[in-house]
Amino acid sequence: MKHIYTDLAIESKEIYHEETKKEIEGVSVDVLEGKNHTITTVKVLNDRGSSLIGRPQGSFITIEVPNLNKSDEDLKDEISIELSKVLLSLIKDYKRDKVLVIGLGNWNISSDALGPKVIERVLVTRHIFINYDKESDESMVNVAAMSPGVLGITGIETYDIVKGIVDKIKPDLVIAIDALSSRRMDRVSTTIQITDVGITPGSGVGNDRQGLNKESLGVPIISLGIPTVVNAATLVNDTMDLIIGSLKNEADVGKEFYSLLDQLSTEDKYSLIEEVLNPYMANVIVTPKDINVLIDDLSIIVANGINIALHPGIGIRDVNRYIR
Amino acid sequence: MKHIYTDLAIESKEIYHEETKKEIEGVSVDVLEGKNHTITTVKVLNDRGSSLIGRPQGSFITIEVPNLNKSDEDLKDEISIELSKVLLSLIKDYKRDKVLVIGLGNWNISSDALGPKVIERVLVTRHIFINYDKESDESMVNVAAMSPGVLGITGIETYDIVKGIVDKIKPDLVIAIDALSSRRMDRVSTTIQITDVGITPGSGVGNDRQGLNKESLGVPIISLGIPTVVNAATLVNDTMDLIIGSLKNEADVGKEFYSLLDQLSTEDKYSLIEEVLNPYMANVIVTPKDINVLIDDLSIIVANGINIALHPGIGIRDVNRYIR
Amino acid sequence: MKHIYTDLAIESKEIYHEETKKEIEGVSVDVLEGKNHTITTVKVLNDRGSSLIGRPQGSFITIEVPNLNKSDEDLKDEISIELSKVLLSLIKDYKRDKVLVIGLGNWNISSDALGPKVIERVLVTRHIFINYDKESDESMVNVAAMSPGVLGITGIETYDIVKGIVDKIKPDLVIAIDALSSRRMDRVSTTIQITDVGITPGSGVGNDRQGLNKESLGVPIISLGIPTVVNAATLVNDTMDLIIGSLKNEADVGKEFYSLLDQLSTEDKYSLIEEVLNPYMANVIVTPKDINVLIDDLSIIVANGINIALHPGIGIRDVNRYIR
Amino acid sequence: MKHIYTDLAIESKEIYHEETKKEIEGVSVDVLEGKNHTITTVKVLNDRGSSLIGRPQGSFITIEVPNLNKSDEDLKDEISIELSKVLLSLIKDYKRDKVLVIGLGNWNISSDALGPKVIERVLVTRHIFINYDKESDESMVNVAAMSPGVLGITGIETYDIVKGIVDKIKPDLVIAIDALSSRRMDRVSTTIQITDVGITPGSGVGNDRQGLNKESLGVPIISLGIPTVVNAATLVNDTMDLIIGSLKNEADVGKEFYSLLDQLSTEDKYSLIEEVLNPYMANVIVTPKDINVLIDDLSIIVANGINIALHPGIGIRDVNRYIR
Repeated sequence: MKHIYTDLAIESKEIYHEETKKEIEGVSVDVLEGKNHTITTVKVLNDRGSSLIGRPQGSFITIEVPNLNKSDEDLKDEISIELSKVLLSLIKDYKRDKVLVIGLGNWNISSDALGPKVIERVLVTRHIFINYDKESDESMVNVAAMSPGVLGITGIETYDIVKGIVDKIKPDLVIAIDALSSRRMDRVSTTIQITDVGITPGSGVGNDRQGLNKESLGVPIISLGIPTVVNAATLVNDTMDLIIGSLKNEADVGKEFYSLLDQLSTEDKYSLIEEVLNPYMANVIVTPKDINVLIDDLSIIVANGINIALHPGIGIRDVNRYIR
Repeated sequence: MKHIYTDLAIESKEIYHEETKKEIEGVSVDVLEGKNHTITTVKVLNDRGSSLIGRPQGSFITIEVPNLNKSDEDLKDEISIELSKVLLSLIKDYKRDKVLVIGLGNWNISSDALGPKVIERVLVTRHIFINYDKESDESMVNVAAMSPGVLGITGIETYDIVKGIVDKIKPDLVIAIDALSSRRMDRVSTTIQITDVGITPGSGVGNDRQGLNKESLGVPIISLGIPTVVNAATLVNDTMDLIIGSLKNEADVGKEFYSLLDQLSTEDKYSLIEEVLNPYMANVIVTPKDINVLIDDLSIIVANGINIALHPGIGIRDVNRYIR
Repeated sequence: MKHIYTDLAIESKEIYHEETKKEIEGVSVDVLEGKNHTITTVKVLNDRGSSLIGRPQGSFITIEVPNLNKSDEDLKDEISIELSKVLLSLIKDYKRDKVLVIGLGNWNISSDALGPKVIERVLVTRHIFINYDKESDESMVNVAAMSPGVLGITGIETYDIVKGIVDKIKPDLVIAIDALSSRRMDRVSTTIQITDVGITPGSGVGNDRQGLNKESLGVPIISLGIPTVVNAATLVNDTMDLIIGSLKNEADVGKEFYSLLDQLSTEDKYSLIEEVLNPYMANVIVTPKDINVLIDDLSIIVANGINIALHPGIGIRDVNRYIR
Repeated sequence: MKHIYTDLAIESKEIYHEETKKEIEGVSVDVLEGKNHTITTVKVLNDRGSSLIGRPQGSFITIEVPNLNKSDEDLKDEISIELSKVLLSLIKDYKRDKVLVIGLGNWNISSDALGPKVIERVLVTRHIFINYDKESDESMVNVAAMSPGVLGITGIETYDIVKGIVDKIKPDLVIAIDALSSRRMDRVSTTIQITDVGITPGSGVGNDRQGLNKESLGVPIISLGIPTVVNAATLVNDTMDLIIGSLKNEADVGKEFYSLLDQLSTEDKYSLIEEVLNPYMANVIVTPKDINVLIDDLSIIVANGINIALHPGIGIRDVNRYIR
């Protein structure tokens, strides 16, 4: 399980299942089926669960919307509202008069620009409070928003920029947005993960960076991400599994092939593929051809969800107009 | 062979070799090794060669530069000069007082934007001729340049836009630039193909469009392309081949696996993969993470090559300054 | 009057009035006051009117919306609908099964990018007709759209590109969008002019280009423009007039100043200013600081208006969603 | 003098001269004429000079290059080198192992985007030091770079972001880049001001913000700016002065006009114009039509200057290649 990298807790859980075919101790899973979407809540309850699934303790909520990347505008609005509810369910007990929204990722790389694009569409109000020399107000939440860039662009760790600002403006809550990687192509641009455990920028790439979490920042943080890429080794692995599946009921070659590959553990197979691919595939991604267009669209859905959750009394029609 | 799609003639040739292990009738291949690059000239000489390799009669010259996507600026300049020589070798016998440069592809899709990006950097001079009310001049070539977009954006066939303009401004020669697909990741952003057989925009996607060629346009056309993506089925196929290769000398599982897969023909294997992938992988590409940055860089190399070839007396230092 | 350049017929009319204090022969003017906007229809009826006002015969309809550049989204939608009605009133008698929309102007210059930005948001359908191999259909208008760029970028006259495409795809009607210049700052980004007399790209800059009109294209053309700049001489001139106005009731200096400047004709004053400014003010514009943001907004209003007018049965809510 | 707003100390000095026709106590002025440029060093030596000229004590060096906005690439390189020398002369006595470069201004407004554009082209090295776990090195300066945005976008004061980061990464020196306003159109995009007194973001707009200076940041700061706009009142004022000048030797109207306007002090005239213009001219700028193109170009010149100054051993050819 450790070898198949994914940013989605729901996939870590699936991988564990595939291999062990059993429930995970210390991890609760709750599924809610809607007409157009499925909400899965994975809770890592204790250290045992944390070590089995490779995630910190906390909640991971996944909204899966198979048709999210289609051009159905009503569905998009519906999901913004759904997202705002999930977000509110996680932050309802937090003080949240002053919120800082952070857009993680590299704006120069199409598939990594979700965070910065969302920031362009978040309703910022903190400058109004500054102009009136107030800190908070019952009728409006104090919202600031910025994109710190990435280490390779600024030469500054994301943590240092965010922590520097948090220390200065002292928000009650941080919301961070990031592009994720998934192991399955059909989750790319159709799944939203919301979690209260924080985030480690660029963690997928194997860097050992300072994470953004409640301990390091001193305030609660909610992270919100959408997979935009699948890594190449994962694609090959999963296709081979599909091939095996499709062959196992067929005669001769199929059966042999199946029994042969079936002898390899998931982990062995994945390692083999990575080993073969790595020499010439570093920094290769598998992504929809029009990922920049998709991310533009997704950033509206996410910004809408955040805007509705933070600003009570603002509905979907209002927010759509702010960000068009 | 028909099933493994590639825009590169050099790969069509390779696939033929892999399957038949023999020379291709009616096709000549000439290889020139340089220190940093290899130039391969594939000439399709007659109908027999054309049908075997699936390409029209004509020349396909490939400049392969393994380190082109690294940040060595001297190498980039060297390749611009090399490209200008190859280009000149193909057009040396054509009248070329008036040239129209066309940037094919969709500027909204990062991996498809090579053509439009090159157009931004081509030295345009035709407006000077218009201002002086001249058609041509010994000291300067008359160059116009434009990007017609794609059918899905404009609702107009690329051919209709290009032919409409060719009929109006009557160039002696058309040069078209396009992003290509390759079957091998290591050719992406490292290989330039120059050909005199014309191009069919979007041909890779299985559309039956009107091609841009000497017959349809009424003037010679040189096409110049760089692979920017590998299709997903190709990636899986080639990885499986690498796995087989790496296993064939190993004991037990490896040997069995190898002999098993070896029974499938290349074509069968590829069809199997495509069949499995297609339902959920339409429009998925495999590409370097920073393809938009790479394409920016490549567009400078290509524009430089074209500018040096068309404007005698302009060297690499001059052109670098025009387009910085 | 000839000296004060403006793209708006309504201003040519005003300048004539200011100087002559009388009605213009051969020109009818009709004003319709709405709550949030005023629609003025200037019709140049014959050669006499044409020579007096310096405009070809035809209709010039101006929608003035003083608050259009504010962020009132309801007003924007209202104006899109108003614009669609005005557009329909001009084209109601034309055949319009196949329409070509053209975005004039230089996309590299913020204040000139209105046309290209509108094109990004026009609903294109012609590729669907191509896919179904049809020319027209009762339920849908066949719409193509493109931005030809400007001579300085492509080396090709706008007319040559547009005429080349018109000859190929044979639309029934052309709609052209362009950024205009006004003589008054308060019209910038608040006024829309729609006319059936065609347009000469770059005519404001004193170039003698081939115009786009019914005679030259062979099909009717409707032009639609919004002022985005005031020229610098005009700004100075009008400010001096304001100063004179503000001084004329004041004692001493004011009165003298007024009577003095009042001796100069409008034309003399303007010439004087131009003469003084020109040596060091070529290519200087006066424009709102955030003109690129304003143009983004205006392009949505205009695209909405065109989309509603062309596609019967599509309302404002639908079109807002298409282009967000 | 207080009323004519300008970001350039050299202009504050000129305005003082125009009005008083005498030297400024406590201010030294030194002029160095080059072939293609003039370097003027204005030093505010004490409180008396500071209050007369309305600037803090410190050095203001202006490089004026009348042809900088032309496309002479050799001149641009020459000015990058000149700029690097001026910059070095100001920082030669400072510790500068670790430098933070800050790009001020609003990236959404073309004329205000100089700072952010320069940041894209500054050679960042700090991430290399992080990867090797070092703070400094003899062979390389540790450079970080970022653009904090503006209050209206982020809801966060520029000072809070910059100070937060300075506290975290503790640079020896800060270099800030900003777009300025001038009172004269011929200085726009042709003049570079370098100063060691710090900068107050948005100070021109009359906001009372926390400045960036040695006292507030705790480290020395060098500011570097180029005028990109003239405000509208200034344009009118200066044109009227030109008109008066051009009329004063002419008969009748001219003489009267001249003597009349001559009675008004510079300040009265300017106030009058501002009063007349303000109601409908807030946020209007006077700028070259192609200011976004010019700023792209200028950002290369400035980034080159900074890169050469900070990284010993890097020459103009090297830096041109890094940022192309």
